Amino acid sequence: MTPIDKLFAIEELKQLKARYFRYIDTKDWSGFAGLFADDAVFDITDDVPGCVLTGPAKIAELPARQLSDAVTVHHGHCPEINITSDRSANAVWAMEDRIWWAEGSSSPVGSLQGYGHYFETYERIDGRWFIKSMRLRRLRVDVEPRAKDPNGT
Amino acid sequence: MTPIDKLFAIEELKQLKARYFRYIDTKDWSGFAGLFADDAVFDITDDVPGCVLTGPAKIAELPARQLSDAVTVHHGHCPEINITSDRSANAVWAMEDRIWWAEGSSSPVGSLQGYGHYFETYERIDGRWFIKSMRLRRLRVDVEPRAKDPNGT
Amino acid sequence: MTPIDKLFAIEELKQLKARYFRYIDTKDWSGFAGLFADDAVFDITDDVPGCVLTGPAKIAELPARQLSDAVTVHHGHCPEINITSDRSANAVWAMEDRIWWAEGSSSPVGSLQGYGHYFETYERIDGRWFIKSMRLRRLRVDVEPRAKDPNGT
Repeated sequence: MTPIDKLFAIEELKQLKARYFRYIDTKDWSGFAGLFADDAVFDITDDVPGCVLTGPAKIAELPARQLSDAVTVHHGHCPEINITSDRSANAVWAMEDRIWWAEGSSSPVGSLQGYGHYFETYERIDGRWFIKSMRLRRLRVDVEPRAKDPNGT
Repeated sequence: MTPIDKLFAIEELKQLKARYFRYIDTKDWSGFAGLFADDAVFDITDDVPGCVLTGPAKIAELPARQLSDAVTVHHGHCPEINITSDRSANAVWAMEDRIWWAEGSSSPVGSLQGYGHYFETYERIDGRWFIKSMRLRRLRVDVEPRAKDPNGT
Repeated sequence: MTPIDKLFAIEELKQLKARYFRYIDTKDWSGFAGLFADDAVFDITDDVPGCVLTGPAKIAELPARQLSDAVTVHHGHCPEINITSDRSANAVWAMEDRIWWAEGSSSPVGSLQGYGHYFETYERIDGRWFIKSMRLRRLRVDVEPRAKDPNGT
């Protein structure tokens, strides 16, 4: 790849991850699913022990179910993107997320604030980049208990 | 535009928005006004119902008045910048802001922490990019009450 | 420098600072020391009055000692990077950091959340960029007291 092709690929990958965060926080689950390669692997074992999902449908189904009645804010910072060929790349992204579940949600906690890094790989298929694998490693997660039910029920 | 011209424009727009945040947080209101096109439209109806300001002077006057006695932190994340011609572009920026008003401020609240997205357009005039329009859409805003006056007055 | 060389240098400097943050938060102190030029100057007088350190070893020794038993999160935002020659550059970075010290730590406070800007210069030596100087200017720092010792000792 030429230097200009590499810089373009880096910018495209930044915008791919930008959509990842925006689609979660605006609950655009079909847009979210469309970011992943067909055989993508999504490892969030640091958040949900044993949880490694494969394929866009399963990857999108989890947040769609768990976050549908929550307000969420996911931000990515300071990517270290490495283009390894004209169809492959990897990156580390610093991240922070906040989740506030609605009253009456089935969530065991009321809200969450977490920090960590995403370790990712990407694949370019027919000229477009997709997330091929994602692994989240947490630095810290703080949770707040659910506000007490005023009726004591 | 050539690919290199597009990449340059994207980097210039990132730095334009970086100055937007830095000028607010360092209270450089003339620098802030200088970022906007003469006919720029600034829509913050999600924060202040009905508030749509036009032109650099009016756009800069509002934060200069409301934030002059506050400490503020405004951060932008993960821009999705789209260059539509050699003199026009648009973007979505994720954002987070914090405001702590001074004791004795006229603000009805003590502090604020908010999250959302800016939807923006830009115009290049005589080789330099300006903000042409900005619309903030909030995901969530949390406010803390003002600390009680210890004298009860 | 050609436009493409400038854009490449800007991306390299973004990744240099990305490693700065990641090495602190993952406690990779030898990696951290390796980011600085031999005569680098590190001015954190806003955090520690009078503290200006010189050289990679001294610069890395301070966080290695003070943060070894803490969980930390350091994020950088919206860099304004200016390439001044093929071997020199400067930048402003917005920043936010959080530190939670372990119980039993010698820290006088329990946790910290801070905001500010880094003002930096860089030098390219044998084709690789290094941090030449760094000065942190704070907008605000909030600290939380250490949780009370349950045994009252």
